[in-house]
Formats: sequence, C-alpha cells, structure tokens
Amino acid sequence: MPNLTLDEFLTLRISQRCQHFIHNNRLLALVYAQQLDRPLLESLFSLANAIRKLSQSRDTRLFLRTLLSDRRAMLYFTQPSTRTFLSFSTACQILGMSTADVRDPATSSQIKGETRQDALRVFSIYHDLVIMRQSEADFCENIAFQMLSWPGHKPIINAGSGADQHPTQALLDLYTLHRCFAQTGGVDHKKIMLVGDLKRGRTARSLAYLLTNYPGVELIFAAPDELAMADDIKAHLRENSTPFTQTQDISTHLSDVDAIYMTRIQDEWDQGTTKTSIDYNRFGLQAQHLKTLKPSCCILHPLPRRKEIPAAIDSDPRAVYFDQVENGMWIRAALIAHMFAVDEQILCSPDK
Amino acid sequence: MPNLTLDEFLTLRISQRCQHFIHNNRLLALVYAQQLDRPLLESLFSLANAIRKLSQSRDTRLFLRTLLSDRRAMLYFTQPSTRTFLSFSTACQILGMSTADVRDPATSSQIKGETRQDALRVFSIYHDLVIMRQSEADFCENIAFQMLSWPGHKPIINAGSGADQHPTQALLDLYTLHRCFAQTGGVDHKKIMLVGDLKRGRTARSLAYLLTNYPGVELIFAAPDELAMADDIKAHLRENSTPFTQTQDISTHLSDVDAIYMTRIQDEWDQGTTKTSIDYNRFGLQAQHLKTLKPSCCILHPLPRRKEIPAAIDSDPRAVYFDQVENGMWIRAALIAHMFAVDEQILCSPDK
Amino acid sequence: MPNLTLDEFLTLRISQRCQHFIHNNRLLALVYAQQLDRPLLESLFSLANAIRKLSQSRDTRLFLRTLLSDRRAMLYFTQPSTRTFLSFSTACQILGMSTADVRDPATSSQIKGETRQDALRVFSIYHDLVIMRQSEADFCENIAFQMLSWPGHKPIINAGSGADQHPTQALLDLYTLHRCFAQTGGVDHKKIMLVGDLKRGRTARSLAYLLTNYPGVELIFAAPDELAMADDIKAHLRENSTPFTQTQDISTHLSDVDAIYMTRIQDEWDQGTTKTSIDYNRFGLQAQHLKTLKPSCCILHPLPRRKEIPAAIDSDPRAVYFDQVENGMWIRAALIAHMFAVDEQILCSPDK
Repeated sequence: MPNLTLDEFLTLRISQRCQHFIHNNRLLALVYAQQLDRPLLESLFSLANAIRKLSQSRDTRLFLRTLLSDRRAMLYFTQPSTRTFLSFSTACQILGMSTADVRDPATSSQIKGETRQDALRVFSIYHDLVIMRQSEADFCENIAFQMLSWPGHKPIINAGSGADQHPTQALLDLYTLHRCFAQTGGVDHKKIMLVGDLKRGRTARSLAYLLTNYPGVELIFAAPDELAMADDIKAHLRENSTPFTQTQDISTHLSDVDAIYMTRIQDEWDQGTTKTSIDYNRFGLQAQHLKTLKPSCCILHPLPRRKEIPAAIDSDPRAVYFDQVENGMWIRAALIAHMFAVDEQILCSPDK
Repeated sequence: MPNLTLDEFLTLRISQRCQHFIHNNRLLALVYAQQLDRPLLESLFSLANAIRKLSQSRDTRLFLRTLLSDRRAMLYFTQPSTRTFLSFSTACQILGMSTADVRDPATSSQIKGETRQDALRVFSIYHDLVIMRQSEADFCENIAFQMLSWPGHKPIINAGSGADQHPTQALLDLYTLHRCFAQTGGVDHKKIMLVGDLKRGRTARSLAYLLTNYPGVELIFAAPDELAMADDIKAHLRENSTPFTQTQDISTHLSDVDAIYMTRIQDEWDQGTTKTSIDYNRFGLQAQHLKTLKPSCCILHPLPRRKEIPAAIDSDPRAVYFDQVENGMWIRAALIAHMFAVDEQILCSPDK
Repeated sequence: MPNLTLDEFLTLRISQRCQHFIHNNRLLALVYAQQLDRPLLESLFSLANAIRKLSQSRDTRLFLRTLLSDRRAMLYFTQPSTRTFLSFSTACQILGMSTADVRDPATSSQIKGETRQDALRVFSIYHDLVIMRQSEADFCENIAFQMLSWPGHKPIINAGSGADQHPTQALLDLYTLHRCFAQTGGVDHKKIMLVGDLKRGRTARSLAYLLTNYPGVELIFAAPDELAMADDIKAHLRENSTPFTQTQDISTHLSDVDAIYMTRIQDEWDQGTTKTSIDYNRFGLQAQHLKTLKPSCCILHPLPRRKEIPAAIDSDPRAVYFDQVENGMWIRAALIAHMFAVDEQILCSPDK
C-alpha cells in the first residue's frame, strides 16, 4: 500500500504515521496510544460493554466464541509479561480464536542469525493476528509498517514496546474511568490525580495524553521532582487546553479529586542509584487517606503494585484496580473484534 | 463467605478447614487429600468411568467437549512438572475448556515486586478455574482461602504443593486400585504393600491416609529405616483401626499382597548425604519377583521411576503404572466436571 | 506388531525399516524422508492443495476445523525451533486439533532420573499424535519403533532429529517445487541447483535424495569443498540415475537452472574454526544475479537465512521462500489429515 520507505515513514509526525494504520475507520494495527481518538474510544467502550454482557450466560458465551473460531492469533511476547499475556490470551479465547505463543526471549532463529523482521514475517504467515510485546521501543512500529507491504498484511497489536508505548493499557485505563463515571456524566470535566513515577511510567504518560480527548478534564501530577511528568506531555496538554497542576504533596488534593491513578516506581529501569534518595512513602496511598476521599472517588492502579497501595485498601469499594484487570480483558476482546469487523454482529445480538 | 482471617483459618484442624472448601456436596477447591472422603471418591470414580466410556467414539468425544466449551482454565505451574501439567491440560481439553499456562518459575510480576497473592487474584479474574502447582507447601491453601472472599471466587485445584500435598495423585492412585479390584470385591479387605521412600513420598503418605476409607484394608510399609512412614500417618491409621506392618524385606510379603505400590527414592529433596548409605536395591522389584506374585496382584508406581522397576516388568499384565497415567487423565477430567456441576449431564448421557 | 527387538530393527536397511511405519498405505509414523515415495508425495500435495483452497472462506475453514476437533496433539520440542513449532501448531489448529506442548529442554522428569522412553510413553497416553523435535539423531526413530508395541500406538511425526532427518522440511520443499512447476510440466526433467552447506544441511541432503523420485531431474551442487554434498547421497543419485554436477561457481549455472535452493552455512554445528577459511560470499545470491536468472526460475530457501539472500531480492516474484513457509503449514496439515484418515472427507468436499 504505502510507497514510502521505512526511513521516510519514520520522519513523519505521529499523526501522519497513524493514518497508515487505519482504513475505513478500522485499525489495521494498534501501535501508538495516539491512534485512540474519542470516536474510536467510545465505540470500543460500547463494544466491550456488549461483550461483557454477552459473557454472562453460557449461550451467549458460546455465540461470542463462534465469531473468530476460524482465526488464529500469535502472541509474540519476547519481553515477559504474564498478566498482559494472559489478558490477551483470554481476550482471544472469548472470541473463539486459537492462539500460539512465543514467550522465550532467546528464540532459536535468532541463534541462527535470522533477522527478527524475517521471523515476524514468518509468524504473520501462520497467523491471522500478531500481538507483540518486546523491550525495544521501535520494533513493533517497524514491523507494523513493513506488514503493510507484505502479502496478506495481518493486523498487529502492540502489547507493550519497551518504555515507550503500551496502547491497550491506556485503553483499559480510560475504559475503567469511563465505567466509573458512567452514572456521573462521564469522564468530561473530572479532576484526576496521577501519582508516582510519571516520568517513566508509560501508562501515566499515555493516560495524560489521551485525557485531552475529554473536555474540561483537569489533571494533577503528584511525583518526586526526579520523576515528574515530562515536557512533551505537558506541551501536548497545553496545546489542547487541558489544565494541569504539579505537586509533591498528594494530601492537599485528596478530598477534591474524582479519580486517583496510582503508579509504581519503575526502579527496574534504574541504571544508577537515583532511587535511594527519593522518599517513596510520600507517593503512596494509606488506609487513613480513605476517609478524606470523596465517596465517589475511584482509585486506579495499572498493577503490579508494591507498597504504594496497601492490601487493606483492596476491600474499599472505591478501589477499582482489580476491576481494571477485568476491564482489560473485555476491552482487548473489543479491540480484536473491531479489527476483525465482527463488531456489528456483537452489537446487533439480541441478548447483548 | 468466611468471617475468618487467614491466620485464624490456619489454626483450625484440617477437618474443619476442609469444611470451607465444600458447598452443597461440591468442592469449591481441592487443596488437601483429606477432602476426599468415601462418597466423594465413589462419585468421582463413577464419573471418570463414564467420561472414559464416552471418549471411545467421536460423537461422544464431541459431546464431552461441549460441556465446558465456554470455560477457561489457568494452569499455574511454577514448579515444573511436565506429566502433571499435561495430564491436567488434557483433562481440560477432554471437556472442551480453553487453557492458558504459566510454567516459568520466574514470572515478570515477581521481578517487579508484586506479591503472588495479587498475581493469583489477577489470574483468577481471567479464568474460570485455577490449577496450581508450586514448591511452597502452604501457598495453594493460602490462595484457596483468600479466593473465598474475592469476587467470583473461582475454583482451585492443588496440582502439587511442595513436599506436602498432591491430592489428585492420591485420587488417581485410589481410582487405579478401584479399577484393579472392580471384579474382586473392590478395595475393601485388600492387602496392599507400599515400598520405598515412605517418609517423603507424598503419594505414599496420602494413599495410606485415604485407605482408611476402606474397611478391612491391611497395609505393609517396606522402607529403609531412614525413610520409614512417618508417625502422623501411623497415628491416623491406628485411630481408624487400619492395621499395618513395617518391614525392610519385601520378599516375605510378595506372595501375599493384592497390590504393590512402588515409589521412587526422592533424593532430589536430599540436603546432605543420607542417601549414599541406603541399599536401594532391597526396595526395588526384580523380574524374578513376578513368579512369586499372585496372578491378580497389581503393581502401581506414581512415576517417574528409576531403577526400582526394571523395564522388563512393563509387559507383565499386572504392571498397571501406565494405566495409572491414563487413569489420572480421566479422574482429573471427572474432578473438573464435578466442580463445574456437569456431572449429571455426563452420567445421564445415553451413550455413557 | 513387530516381533523384532529395537536392536534387531536398527540393523535393518532403511527401506526395510520404512515398512514398519506404514499400514494400508497410511503412515503410522513419519520418521525418515526416505518414507516419502512418489505416490505418497503426490497424494499429500493434492491434499495440501485442497486444504489450502478450503481455507479461503469462513464456512470451509470451519468445516476443516471439525475434522479432528475431538483429537489432541502433543508438540514435544526439546530442541527449540520456533518456526517449525508454530508451523505444526498451526497445522493442528487448521484441522481443529487441540495442542499441548513441551518446549523446555530441561523437563522435570529428567531431573528426577526418568528415561525419556517413559516420558514419551506417558505423553502418548494423553495425546492422539506426538510431534517431536530433539537434538539426538536417533531418538525419534527409537520412540517410533517402541510405540508400535505400546497400547494404542499413536502416530508420530519427526519434526527434526538433530543433524539427521527433518522429513517435513523435505516435504514442504518438494511441495513448493511442485507448485512452482505446476504450469510447466511438473518437477520432472527440471534442472535444480543446491547452494551452500550441502554437507551438513539436512534439508539439502533430503531434497537431493527425494528428487530421485522425479525422472529427468538434473542437479547442480554448489558448495565449498569442505561442505560438499556427502558421498552417501551421491551414491544414491548414481544408483537412481539422477545426474549431478559439482561446482564452486554458481554464476556459470544461473542462466540455466529452473530452481535454486539456497541454504545457510550451518556454523552453529561447528566445533572448531573451519568456517573462518571459507569465502561465503561466493555461495550467496546477489541482487545483480536476478537479471541472469530465467524469468520462470524459482528461488527457494528453507529459512532462517543470513547474508546468502539479501532482503532486496524478497520482492522479486521468483523469490518463493516465504511461500515455502506457507506451503509448510498446508503440507503439514495434509500429513496429519492423511495419518488420521480424514483425507477422503477433504478431497470429497464440494467446496474444495
């Protein structure tokens, strides 16, 4: 399809690159969180709600399983991630897709000196969908672009590319907010605090970016100076007139916010000793904070967590981080259904 | 359901703990061999026989596969065990369940500092059944208890928890004895010799424990002194009036017994050098022993074996250790069918 | 079935051994490329073409998936090979088979001292088909022979046994040639050049061997002296009157050949430093060679490749190495369909 070379493609602005991965309002590949505009988000949320509802009884579960029962998905997870792997595997199973997986970072073909481009081209021949997660920031984008010129150009989903992009996490976070605010006017005009490692946490970055789709949203960034939200995101917020505040003290905002998005300090990326100097306790939620929060406030976390949310908070009805896990499963099934154009069948099902 | 804390639960006697994992005569979790009482054993054996029979033709195999075709199982095997893994995977497939697995002891979430409680809670959100095997003795019990208070409380099966419990192995061993004695009055009143590492072999321990369910059974324990059956099991036998003898000479009992349960010396648990001093040959079966055995005697082994049964014995019709393997597959399918309440559909099938 | 011992079996000529693995013109096991005679090849090619055609629409894909939907395959890949693993996994899924796999070379039973014979016997109890790949040359043959005397004797497919045999690769290579020459009189009387590591490359060895099934075929072996085609294959070619030439200069034959079979220098088998002395560039294809080739010449490579074919050649219509990948998937599905005797159902399908 494209007459561009990969090098030319990579010089494009991201909004231009996004245009290559959509055709007739349907994603050919989901590579960047930036592809998720408001209409697409809304349609995926509706689809996820429908799939969730159809999963409540055996007959409709079996109906869902017929939808892609002739299709095969490949889960190429050379960067291990058990929860994301299982979430996608389950999403495929909900729609009846067969799956195969590669989860070993050291695959034999690499030992034999093969390029990973060749490996991915081979995998895309066997399968109807490639879901990939790896530690390199640009590999998924690279493959998704090349796929456009390979015969059969199979759809691709980025399930996490290094520290860079993890668009389906952003999708499930927004879907969770969408559900939390279903009875209170939606995400528009809500005040949302993001806490923790905002510099490196790709989930917090993507969420902040995508919240510019929602008019009136106000953001509070609570992070240690060293891990503050980066300038590129702040510039994007300003461009889109989304107001934000920065703070190092979460307590002054607790009584005020509609949602808190907690994150883990990503010290597995640390090269040196920066982490030792930060007092992480200031960026954790405590059981005693609960009485300060609004009754309707919801607490999100992309998981895995460490000490930033103690287990004592889990049973509070405002804690929705395990709902996020479930939401991830439904929204990923919705994404796959959208890419394979079985959304109409789902939305038109009488039992939906 | 329970208003107990985990710590309180763990102070209960095992018979009281068992009560938490059963509801309306249906297991919510199989954690301990002690949960397998006589009525449950008999009903699982009947169910396994029915599933086996239905597996003999294509139409009825396809019927079985419809039963749980809308369900998903998670095999969480952080302690590798290929044969148990495959046995459960097959049992799920027989009933049409989709499966996903984690078999790598080092999962990513642990690298990121997540508790395994959180990890298991996440997995239980994605799946309808969790089958777990790991090296820690108490982890499965811990999770099974917590699951009771998590939303959706999915069923759990203990597929081996360290040196402690492996209830489905006990189940398949008893099912094998049940089948061996189907034409000769059942397991009641049989004389059964257990040979080898009776101290550490959890399968021998569980089998001895559960045989108290069968009136008139007489046990012979043949083991080196260092690896003799432990006092807790012997106390249980005395309480239940199950007579037993201890010996270091298998040959004096060979002509007399109805079944021999051979086990492997579990020297992979050895810390020091105890094993070098034991003459293991005395606790092995030899081809020349075969002429001494009763024609109806059956020879069991939980496998894997080493030298304690030479391959020359495999073709003797009394050797049933490969039948045990097959029995394990059917009885695990029966257990899953029981937990998901599709047993009636199986037992009422006209082709059964 | 056989009253032979394994040792006796292994003294037989390969043509005699082949007789043990076929019954009523149907393979019980595919162990050796030598089992693939011309009638079997032709029938598998027809079957693969039919499966390929039936895979073009959803209804017929679903029909294919019913064929073995009550069957379970085991993929025992203790020698990692991602592409072959996925090709077989996909072939099983095309026919609706459930799969389970062991891909870790260090399985638990081996830690516990079990023989792999026992392990394979156990796996064959759980599954209806065993597909195995491992680094030892003779293990698959050994198991396939023993399987004949085990109850249920399940079919076995050799998916690569060390440096020795990889019969389904030979099958897919021949199937690719068959398709390339479908409009030009078939493989008979074609001139085919094999290039690269002909000494150790089992695919080149098997292909040369099997091309004796095709009258009039003429072979050119282009390899460094150190890696020349071995004498056993050359003797076989002479016995079957298949002419061959040896060369170290591919360029003199480029304008003349109907197909070029490129291979990778297998230096992962190297023990010493032989490879450093060879100028591999002389055994690679270059973009400028393309204008010399016949318009109908096809370029094959079993993959993975390294520098012997630059990516610039990929878009040339004569490059069929990615078609080979797809062909491998269809021909493996055809092989499985043949072994399970569902070939008639496929060939008689009206939509085929």
